[in-house]
Amino acid sequence: MKGSFITLEGIEGAGKSTCMAEVLTVLKAAGRDVLETREPGGTRLGEELRQLLLGHKHTGMHEDTELLLMFASRAEHLQQRILPALNQGQWVLCDRFTDASYAYQGGGRGMDVERIRQLENWVQGDMRPDLTLLMDLPVELGLARAGKRSSPDRFESEALEFFERVRNAYLEIAGNEPQRVAVIDASRTLEEVQAQVREVTRAFLEGRA
Amino acid sequence: MKGSFITLEGIEGAGKSTCMAEVLTVLKAAGRDVLETREPGGTRLGEELRQLLLGHKHTGMHEDTELLLMFASRAEHLQQRILPALNQGQWVLCDRFTDASYAYQGGGRGMDVERIRQLENWVQGDMRPDLTLLMDLPVELGLARAGKRSSPDRFESEALEFFERVRNAYLEIAGNEPQRVAVIDASRTLEEVQAQVREVTRAFLEGRA
Repeated sequence: MKGSFITLEGIEGAGKSTCMAEVLTVLKAAGRDVLETREPGGTRLGEELRQLLLGHKHTGMHEDTELLLMFASRAEHLQQRILPALNQGQWVLCDRFTDASYAYQGGGRGMDVERIRQLENWVQGDMRPDLTLLMDLPVELGLARAGKRSSPDRFESEALEFFERVRNAYLEIAGNEPQRVAVIDASRTLEEVQAQVREVTRAFLEGRA
Repeated sequence: MKGSFITLEGIEGAGKSTCMAEVLTVLKAAGRDVLETREPGGTRLGEELRQLLLGHKHTGMHEDTELLLMFASRAEHLQQRILPALNQGQWVLCDRFTDASYAYQGGGRGMDVERIRQLENWVQGDMRPDLTLLMDLPVELGLARAGKRSSPDRFESEALEFFERVRNAYLEIAGNEPQRVAVIDASRTLEEVQAQVREVTRAFLEGRA
């Protein structure tokens, strides 16, 4: 039986790592074999592309180039790791996937959403995540949390309004696809957030059983 | 007045460098300001991607990934160098462009030509070269010439039949677009090849005058 494909999304500081740990605990307790991975990255080539995309060296990159590199990394990840794992019955838990392209490049940078959709279809065909947990919280809170733990990368240097657009794009996706996307209120306490994540994951597991 | 965009194509050992030098001589003699460039590459980011694409490190790369990286490099090249140069009235002379994707990925690797066309349209809109010189010669002759001057890269390690398919794909493009693509018989002597290239370039210049 094929595994399920679960993705985690959210702006900087939303607590995706916390979410990932919690989903993993629930899945393992249920006896699922899980592949943990992330985008951009997830393959050796993908990690090299991640450096190109997130580093400060190529900040003048054209937006078309950026989107094509994102989807090149995604194609490699999908074909070499995600699809083989799912076909072998593993579950795949991925920190960011195509929703992030819609949120960051579409919402954040204002790229034509139709152009993003063309690359999504080109790379994925009709393959989509089975479940997406969207860690949602006010942008100021997320950035404050993110500022506490890491040096700003190229995306984190962008203005606050950029992240407002990213957050709104994520929420729009969740509004359009409530069956797939569960919105987690990440502004709550750690214990409350963890409880929400566990509840969503358990409900999904029951739905698959 | 906008400049013209001239591309050079052909299999390994077909003499693109010779062709480039000859075209350049004719254009400069006619007083044109020329930007010489190449693909994959042509930008700092593009040269890094060229290393990823032509090196031996990522030989297991999925064909979708390879094509997306080619077009990412092309998008950067087009937006950051080629279009600005043309808009400033420079002529652009480029060693390989999108015909190479049709020839190598389509003809050589057997990728769906329609998928290549989707990326071509995504990246270029309706922008196409004004003139393409296709250096054509028998595969064995080209590979023998190439073998004399450089160590084999990933493409040159492929089998002879691969290059036969590449050559045939190039010739098919030339057959479909005779107005744009001039076929140069690159099996002739150096002097004869140079004379053909000069003649084609001069005729194109006259047509533009």
